[in-house]
Amino acid sequence: MRDGQFATPPDHDTDLDQLAAAGVGPDEHDHVVVLSNVMDREPQSLQHVLLADAVAVGRLQDDRCSISSDSAGSSSTIARLLVARLLANWFAQEGYAIITDRMPKLTHGCQRCLALARNRRRIPRHRCAALWADRAWESSGLSVLQAMGMSRLIFPSLRYPIVQAPMAGGPSTPALAAAVSGARGLGFLAAGYKTVDQVERELAEVRSVVPAGVPYGINVFAPPGHGLGAAEVSSYADRLRNEAQERGVALGHPRWDDDGYGEKLDLICEQPVPVVSLTFGCPTPSEVNRLQSSGSAVWVTVTTVGEAQAAQRAGVDALVVQGVEAGGHRGGFDDADPGDVGLLALLQLVQAAVNDDLPLVATGGLVTGRGIAAVLACGAAAAQLGTAFMLCPEAGTASAHRDMISRDDAPTALTRAFTGRTARGIVNRFLRDHAEAPSAYPEIHHLTAPLRTAARVRGDRDGFHLWAGQAHALAQPLPAADLVVRLGTEAREALRTATL
Amino acid sequence: MRDGQFATPPDHDTDLDQLAAAGVGPDEHDHVVVLSNVMDREPQSLQHVLLADAVAVGRLQDDRCSISSDSAGSSSTIARLLVARLLANWFAQEGYAIITDRMPKLTHGCQRCLALARNRRRIPRHRCAALWADRAWESSGLSVLQAMGMSRLIFPSLRYPIVQAPMAGGPSTPALAAAVSGARGLGFLAAGYKTVDQVERELAEVRSVVPAGVPYGINVFAPPGHGLGAAEVSSYADRLRNEAQERGVALGHPRWDDDGYGEKLDLICEQPVPVVSLTFGCPTPSEVNRLQSSGSAVWVTVTTVGEAQAAQRAGVDALVVQGVEAGGHRGGFDDADPGDVGLLALLQLVQAAVNDDLPLVATGGLVTGRGIAAVLACGAAAAQLGTAFMLCPEAGTASAHRDMISRDDAPTALTRAFTGRTARGIVNRFLRDHAEAPSAYPEIHHLTAPLRTAARVRGDRDGFHLWAGQAHALAQPLPAADLVVRLGTEAREALRTATL
Repeated sequence: MRDGQFATPPDHDTDLDQLAAAGVGPDEHDHVVVLSNVMDREPQSLQHVLLADAVAVGRLQDDRCSISSDSAGSSSTIARLLVARLLANWFAQEGYAIITDRMPKLTHGCQRCLALARNRRRIPRHRCAALWADRAWESSGLSVLQAMGMSRLIFPSLRYPIVQAPMAGGPSTPALAAAVSGARGLGFLAAGYKTVDQVERELAEVRSVVPAGVPYGINVFAPPGHGLGAAEVSSYADRLRNEAQERGVALGHPRWDDDGYGEKLDLICEQPVPVVSLTFGCPTPSEVNRLQSSGSAVWVTVTTVGEAQAAQRAGVDALVVQGVEAGGHRGGFDDADPGDVGLLALLQLVQAAVNDDLPLVATGGLVTGRGIAAVLACGAAAAQLGTAFMLCPEAGTASAHRDMISRDDAPTALTRAFTGRTARGIVNRFLRDHAEAPSAYPEIHHLTAPLRTAARVRGDRDGFHLWAGQAHALAQPLPAADLVVRLGTEAREALRTATL
Repeated sequence: MRDGQFATPPDHDTDLDQLAAAGVGPDEHDHVVVLSNVMDREPQSLQHVLLADAVAVGRLQDDRCSISSDSAGSSSTIARLLVARLLANWFAQEGYAIITDRMPKLTHGCQRCLALARNRRRIPRHRCAALWADRAWESSGLSVLQAMGMSRLIFPSLRYPIVQAPMAGGPSTPALAAAVSGARGLGFLAAGYKTVDQVERELAEVRSVVPAGVPYGINVFAPPGHGLGAAEVSSYADRLRNEAQERGVALGHPRWDDDGYGEKLDLICEQPVPVVSLTFGCPTPSEVNRLQSSGSAVWVTVTTVGEAQAAQRAGVDALVVQGVEAGGHRGGFDDADPGDVGLLALLQLVQAAVNDDLPLVATGGLVTGRGIAAVLACGAAAAQLGTAFMLCPEAGTASAHRDMISRDDAPTALTRAFTGRTARGIVNRFLRDHAEAPSAYPEIHHLTAPLRTAARVRGDRDGFHLWAGQAHALAQPLPAADLVVRLGTEAREALRTATL
């Protein structure tokens, strides 16, 4: 960079009052910075813009919005500032942004420049993005991030770094996912246990509600390994037979299947979803690449340091780091080693074991704004909450299950009794009676399914799986969008008041 | 309050340069505020001073030190500012301070005024204190806090909200406690397993090193309950006999005792220690009161919401909230229910169940600055770290134990194999072989002690308890004072960069 190339003063400054008059209020954000009208230049010039950060940062300290324009025709600046709002939260923390006014062919160049800037100032990847800010994005049906080929950087586009955990088997619904994403958290569908047709219908339902460009996600079960053999499963079936007969229910057929893994991936590649998370295993590098090429960010759930390293090697975009506090299934790769590490300990260990710029989504026992603040302070890019959303009216949680989640005298435990795979649920009669159930998923899931369905239908809380995280008693029965805003506000306040 | 009573401008302002010239550098603190020379008035006036906070806060925003003096003779102001340094970290976060220039008889009035101010602005108790700032404190051997009868408010006087966990059985030494307190964290002695004479010698050693007024702590085991009976203990002894014979070691006598609880409390009441924490049970309200009356803050370790509520009812000054990630013994009241909740989940649950102003010290799996930042963001007043200090040269950790803590391929598990009480250690042969050891503490502790001592002496990592928290692999072999500063600095950075 030649000295002085970007030392010319900006054409004009716009203060926050002017932005507010244009409908770009500083309501939630302290700082907005835009470097615009730079696309007349070659990619090398973009790099130069990035190197001009010192000027921009200096202006940030005055709580002002500085607009540096190196060409005429900046009248559409205000329109572009709408896009800048997406960035403001994290840009204020030494992130970088390129906001341009043309659909560039220069995506690769932008990304390369960002990488250079990141390395120079050691900024995590989830704090950097290049955005395209022409008005066309609003009508294109593509998000700004998608338009820039940066769709896999989900975090900058969330207003609240709150992910609604996918909860297969009922609680997750299209309405819940849409409400959370609509509030600008990240809602999730759960493809597990569903047919491909059901998944397609649910995706269509979410797409019909969520505004274009607003991200949402879907969770897919990776094919499970093979657990213990037919003898153990058969022996467990014998222990269940009396109970089934008393209830007038036939046990299910204990078969192994892969939950339609291949077909579900095909569907998602044909109809891309902004985020695809995987549970129970790590996709192959080629599966990861295929999903990414079709526009999805790929996240993988991990419960141990070894799994985190394996997922990184597979090329995923983020890790969902699941602490032992989490409700429902342990999401790791191997039920023989389901992971027993608490969330904060695991976050610290994983951070030390993977690249600094691999975003971590923390999950397990997070139900309050303070809990969210804690994992953000620990370096997570977002917090994923499951049980916290189970009392929302949009959730499909069974009534007897809701009652138990609300109780503060209902301890949880890990068990294989219901599905043959380790999961955390509120302790009830079935869980206590079958503490020694073998590791054999999904065989035992299929075996017990009719028993559990019957119990749920008759409202018998002692007869089916009451998945819940350890802090379930703090869940609030609020509409999901209200809950996202409340949790986000509480988390912001917790971070504001924490000092040292 | 009559209008205008405190609207008179301050007599003078002193900026930070002047303070620096007086040896009161702004090195670590942003803001210093002193309200002095107010003790000529009645207690009602003190309340008025507190109500003048708006003026003080306004001046804080200029990064200036404003001194409001309503009488002549303020020449000793600079000396009193030395005391103000204790306050600065937390006062800058909307805390309140009264600093006076006479040893007041008005302690009760001060405390009442603080309570009013706290209620009005909803400030946690650990952010408020009244201090006495006469020069006499420097030579009195009492801390400022003790002189004001406010000795139980420990947290404002720590430079780093980092507590070194008491680690009975070797790792905790007077040198370790003194180094941590000297660095202005909070060092702890462990009275457990020691005679009263040993405890007295260790206390004397710490007092000889730690400057007057700098707090430190001691941990005492509450009397354990009675576990399973003699038959179970005898059966376990039979299983250990071969191993003992092979090693040429006689098993110990499996007796119950209370570890000298009463005598240790007597000692501490005669020779007060700033902080007394209790493990394995809750002291009675009269024991709590006796310790507090002699000048100690009383903390109790809890692992469940029920224990937290019981400790609050007993009148303790703070709770040590221990997550399941923690190394060593589960510190709760009852080994039949040792608590399996992860730290973040437990913190959120306890916060919802106890009074807002009861300070919580978070412990379990915290080894990094980010981990500390996380619990502070979650509302804890301080973080307590054990394993993080076990590799310090000042720690008495056995060599084979140090080796295992450093390894990143050494998982931990909960076990009763070594002591008959649930504890977390690195998995080794002894732990695996005796997974079914009964709950009988301290009988089994005494039974296995000779076996464990012999194994430690011969460096056999498979034969003794390798207590360690789940994130042990991240412990750093640094001098304790350096470690405190490093962790505190990292935690501060983590909080600074976390946003939402």
